[in-house]
Amino acid sequence: MATTSPRNRLGRKARNQHAPQQEAVEHEPADETADDAVAVDVELLRELLLGAYAPERRAARELIRDERFHHVPGRTKEEQRERTFEGLKALAGTEAVLAGLPTAQGGAGRPGAYVASFEEFVLADASLQIKAGVQWGLFGSAILNLGTQAHHDKWLADIWSLRIPGAFAMTETGHGSDVASIATTATYDPHTQEFEIHTPYRAAWKDYLGNAALHGRAAVVFAQLITGGVNHGVHALYVPIRDEHGEFLPGVGGEDDGYKGGLNGVDNGRLHFTHVRVPRENLLDRYGHVEPDGSYTSPIASPGRRFFTMLGTLVQGRVSLDGSAVVASRAGLAIALTYANERRQFSPVAGQPERVLLDYTRHRRRLFPYVARSLAAGFAHDELLGAYDDVFSGRTDDDDARQDLETLAAAMKATSTRLALDSLQECREACGGAGFLSANRITDLRHDMDVYATFEGDNTVLMQLVAKRLLGDHAKEFARMDVGVMARWVADRATETAVNRSGLRGLSQVFRDSADPRRSVNALRDPETQRSLLTDRVRSMIGEVAENMRGAGKGTPEAAAEAFDRNQHRLIEAARAHAHLLQWEAFTRAVGKVEDPGTRQVLVWLRDLFGLSVIEEHLDWYLSHGRMSLMRGRMVESYVDRLVTRLRPHIMDVVEAFGFAPEHLRADIASGAEAARQQEAADWVAGERAAGRWPRNEKSGK
Amino acid sequence: MATTSPRNRLGRKARNQHAPQQEAVEHEPADETADDAVAVDVELLRELLLGAYAPERRAARELIRDERFHHVPGRTKEEQRERTFEGLKALAGTEAVLAGLPTAQGGAGRPGAYVASFEEFVLADASLQIKAGVQWGLFGSAILNLGTQAHHDKWLADIWSLRIPGAFAMTETGHGSDVASIATTATYDPHTQEFEIHTPYRAAWKDYLGNAALHGRAAVVFAQLITGGVNHGVHALYVPIRDEHGEFLPGVGGEDDGYKGGLNGVDNGRLHFTHVRVPRENLLDRYGHVEPDGSYTSPIASPGRRFFTMLGTLVQGRVSLDGSAVVASRAGLAIALTYANERRQFSPVAGQPERVLLDYTRHRRRLFPYVARSLAAGFAHDELLGAYDDVFSGRTDDDDARQDLETLAAAMKATSTRLALDSLQECREACGGAGFLSANRITDLRHDMDVYATFEGDNTVLMQLVAKRLLGDHAKEFARMDVGVMARWVADRATETAVNRSGLRGLSQVFRDSADPRRSVNALRDPETQRSLLTDRVRSMIGEVAENMRGAGKGTPEAAAEAFDRNQHRLIEAARAHAHLLQWEAFTRAVGKVEDPGTRQVLVWLRDLFGLSVIEEHLDWYLSHGRMSLMRGRMVESYVDRLVTRLRPHIMDVVEAFGFAPEHLRADIASGAEAARQQEAADWVAGERAAGRWPRNEKSGK
Repeated sequence: MATTSPRNRLGRKARNQHAPQQEAVEHEPADETADDAVAVDVELLRELLLGAYAPERRAARELIRDERFHHVPGRTKEEQRERTFEGLKALAGTEAVLAGLPTAQGGAGRPGAYVASFEEFVLADASLQIKAGVQWGLFGSAILNLGTQAHHDKWLADIWSLRIPGAFAMTETGHGSDVASIATTATYDPHTQEFEIHTPYRAAWKDYLGNAALHGRAAVVFAQLITGGVNHGVHALYVPIRDEHGEFLPGVGGEDDGYKGGLNGVDNGRLHFTHVRVPRENLLDRYGHVEPDGSYTSPIASPGRRFFTMLGTLVQGRVSLDGSAVVASRAGLAIALTYANERRQFSPVAGQPERVLLDYTRHRRRLFPYVARSLAAGFAHDELLGAYDDVFSGRTDDDDARQDLETLAAAMKATSTRLALDSLQECREACGGAGFLSANRITDLRHDMDVYATFEGDNTVLMQLVAKRLLGDHAKEFARMDVGVMARWVADRATETAVNRSGLRGLSQVFRDSADPRRSVNALRDPETQRSLLTDRVRSMIGEVAENMRGAGKGTPEAAAEAFDRNQHRLIEAARAHAHLLQWEAFTRAVGKVEDPGTRQVLVWLRDLFGLSVIEEHLDWYLSHGRMSLMRGRMVESYVDRLVTRLRPHIMDVVEAFGFAPEHLRADIASGAEAARQQEAADWVAGERAAGRWPRNEKSGK
Repeated sequence: MATTSPRNRLGRKARNQHAPQQEAVEHEPADETADDAVAVDVELLRELLLGAYAPERRAARELIRDERFHHVPGRTKEEQRERTFEGLKALAGTEAVLAGLPTAQGGAGRPGAYVASFEEFVLADASLQIKAGVQWGLFGSAILNLGTQAHHDKWLADIWSLRIPGAFAMTETGHGSDVASIATTATYDPHTQEFEIHTPYRAAWKDYLGNAALHGRAAVVFAQLITGGVNHGVHALYVPIRDEHGEFLPGVGGEDDGYKGGLNGVDNGRLHFTHVRVPRENLLDRYGHVEPDGSYTSPIASPGRRFFTMLGTLVQGRVSLDGSAVVASRAGLAIALTYANERRQFSPVAGQPERVLLDYTRHRRRLFPYVARSLAAGFAHDELLGAYDDVFSGRTDDDDARQDLETLAAAMKATSTRLALDSLQECREACGGAGFLSANRITDLRHDMDVYATFEGDNTVLMQLVAKRLLGDHAKEFARMDVGVMARWVADRATETAVNRSGLRGLSQVFRDSADPRRSVNALRDPETQRSLLTDRVRSMIGEVAENMRGAGKGTPEAAAEAFDRNQHRLIEAARAHAHLLQWEAFTRAVGKVEDPGTRQVLVWLRDLFGLSVIEEHLDWYLSHGRMSLMRGRMVESYVDRLVTRLRPHIMDVVEAFGFAPEHLRADIASGAEAARQQEAADWVAGERAAGRWPRNEKSGK
């Protein structure tokens, strides 16, 4: 690829006195490719974005071009549910679904490939993705991961073939994220060698369960396991709920959750059990076993650790939501950007053609940072999926790996589902009234995604889990230091050099810069600066909270709880900051894999846009904590402006690299119709003018 | 009301070394009522929140308790449209609707009262509000405001009685916010004394029009008026579109916009015209008249001013959306807060009762600032409604008043519709899975409100209008200064004292404070500080943009357009800042009316929460522009934390003062069902324990 000297080209621009934000980037490092020589290798970028499971994702996308899988707006929930169920039947037996079944039962035993395919289903219909996730990802996986060989042999094949549609009966009306407090009981009766499943009161009804309102024939029911008068905590049992005619079995009852804000192709409902008996063998007993005489054994002695281990096996749902949120976010962006690249509105200079929306600064500012974020979230997801496959394929399955995976999944799911909602909303508004029509897809997609923010773990609760882990790691770091080191840490902190000790570059040096905007910008786009800033914020916030809580931890449990609550807001912010750092790191690693200079350059700009838009979002923190000079703080905004301008010529290549076919987007405004209408209008006006029929203007007389 | 010394009470807390944010507010001004003596007079607050048209709002709320007006989830668009139309028929003839009809036609001629009532209809069904708005607020008002006596006499009574349902045919597929560029033509033919309405191409189809897909019998069509070969710009004409059987008249065609992301009770559709002829008298000719011979006259010589005057008469829609956004936002908050005040989740200390959501810091932080914002938006709306009534009742109808009204309406509509979307989303997520069910209302309400952000003027475009007005005012201020003053202004600016000259208190003095957190907090809650900060940001941003653009304005039109675009992002931010300032001012004036000390105190806290949450949102600006010390910047967060804690005991009183009946909220989770379920659960556990049936815990053995 030909390169010209960026210095010469930009040197010209710098002479424009009225463009300070351009002046600021006058002298660029010589290794940066000049703007006009930059071109994206779309094929290459598409492969990079598809990630580790590119073939599976391509196959899944091919599969769902079939319109019978597609969501159709405006149908009743009964019609939507039927359609989704038919879609599920068509999926059963495909490679995508069989990837999740162990080889012993005739599947491929490739957990990562399986999850990757499911994530793409959201392009056809989020209800299809979620109902598939309920059937195979929750109901099936619970039996796979919490059950033992006999359970696998007995049920997995029928579950995978959809002969047994099932529900995952964990959540209760009274308890969502706090699973440990559910109130359904499974009491062992040694006389009959049965468990009695019972719902003691209304708040203990199972609620929001997919497959429960209509199609489920069985359920994995989570209940407090009681044997010999002792409560051993939450365990899962296989419980048949409906007969072959779809009628509830004796003792089982329930009701429909009715219409929801989206996902109406999934038959969510409630279940309750009145002294329902199942054989002892129906306890999924990998982590807790009851002998015929009622004695309880578990490979994990600590009830707390046992509970978290069992729940940890269900991380797949979060991994999958993380990935599908990225896909949905990109679909919305592809629609909004395609439209914005064609739609014209307002002529900036009277008599001249109207300008396309993407040529307005504000419009780029609204959409491009979401493109950068969707890339960051995607690269981070690809790594998460790798970690998931490592653990669940058994390659790297130990306590540490599982704990890391859970933390990562919580952080990523909470961040990308937020991104999906925010970006789809921005896309919808950026398309004006057209964005509101179901024919243009975005609103329906957003309605479905809405619940992703609170299911499979409420995002707020997930972020608290992440924060607690960060606090724990922080404490361990302290525990390893002797008193001398501790004292040094405190001293360091006071002079803001703690970050150096932690392996970061000398932030305080970097930020005691002069009032030179050029140096500020050069520093801001240095990846080490971005990394330092993002890392420092996480560490500092966690350190601050740890310090706030240290005294309280030694007091009463009430005082500790109070201290935790007082810092809850900051903890959650720290967890968000941590998630963004992880995404930034993943983005940077992905950029490192790209050798083509043009593609690499555009990715670097997008990575910078991601990093700086996150830093901009929290600029108040960086400034008020003295991590950035006021001059540099002001430069962040103008450098972000500069980045979105530079990305303008390449953004449609990035959209093309998303790799969506028209059958995936299904949006009139992304079909080229807008450009065709404009051409028709322009031709008509030209014809009228040529024929001398064009009326004169009252004001100009022309 | 008894008062205790706040100093003593808070002095105790201040001894707690681990609560710096509490320590910071140790010494409060003696005139601040102590927290434990504060109580809200709910009746008084309710009247204040209902505002100037309290009786009309109460009557409208009473009217819509009737379930036939209520939105029912899950119906097809055909069913919803029919229901909404039936609702409209039931509204026709009510005082609320007749308030908008002039006395000459048998109405009450009270525009403010009329709009206030319509705003409340959103509680029944947003589709009802919008369809009523289309019929009477747009179609009817266009004839009222753009037509003359003969038009009023001929059509208004039939429109108000719903004998003529009609569409407001302004927007075209190709042009939304840029009305001046619409392409439909109305060409005068002096031989037949008719106008020929014509749609030249597909992009010129009228689009997104309520009443167009199904019920409309006529339309006010906006078209380029051409007579004698001259285009006189956009004018409105009355055009019959369907016969008494609902069939399109010859030359008229159209199609259904289909399903939308919400508001499916409104029959939005498209219309096109093929050489459709209407009598000369059908031109609504208040601002532009065509004589039988085809000669054109107008009371407004400038085509540009004429256009803006005509459009300005249609401000009612924006005023009404502003008010209904406030109502919808409060409805969502009432649901989420009622639930959060009952719903328990997680026990902070093992063995103790679970905590209600509102007792979590994060939950308060999520919801309370929206309560404050909904109050601010409501107080500002009440003033906007007063301005609207002044102009449209004819009391204060001049160019300046109309221009102020339009700017105010644009700023308020764009801000409150954003608020409605953001707050409803936060409410939905704050209710977890329950928030996603249609039975709990929030998602459906949000789906409907979604389009409020882009119809009746896209919010981005509206904010640009506001910004242009601010820039214009800024330029006028400069024009009045001589060179000496100009030089002084520049010098002042350099030393940051320009704000003093502008009538603000000495910001630079206030902010060069020491590192004393107490003084920082005292300053932050001083209304003059808040006002200064909010005002300064608007002025500085506009001044900065004006300076950036000054050189460009003297260059080519292209250069000027380029400079405007480069500053577009900042201009829109400045307009948002201006809207927040106006809301803050309105809030402060409202507080000034309250004499009851308890109610006043809670309102002061809410006003402070509003002001500081806006300042917190833009803290990076205040810090990087040296408007606030770093210490004070850090105190903003902790003082906001403190405010939400103080408001905790009063927030449900504020919700009660919203004045919603169960028929307005219609949400299961706000019905008390949650508390009842918890009581049942607690009673059951107590009974089991008493009976000795409660199982022992594996870990504790108890």
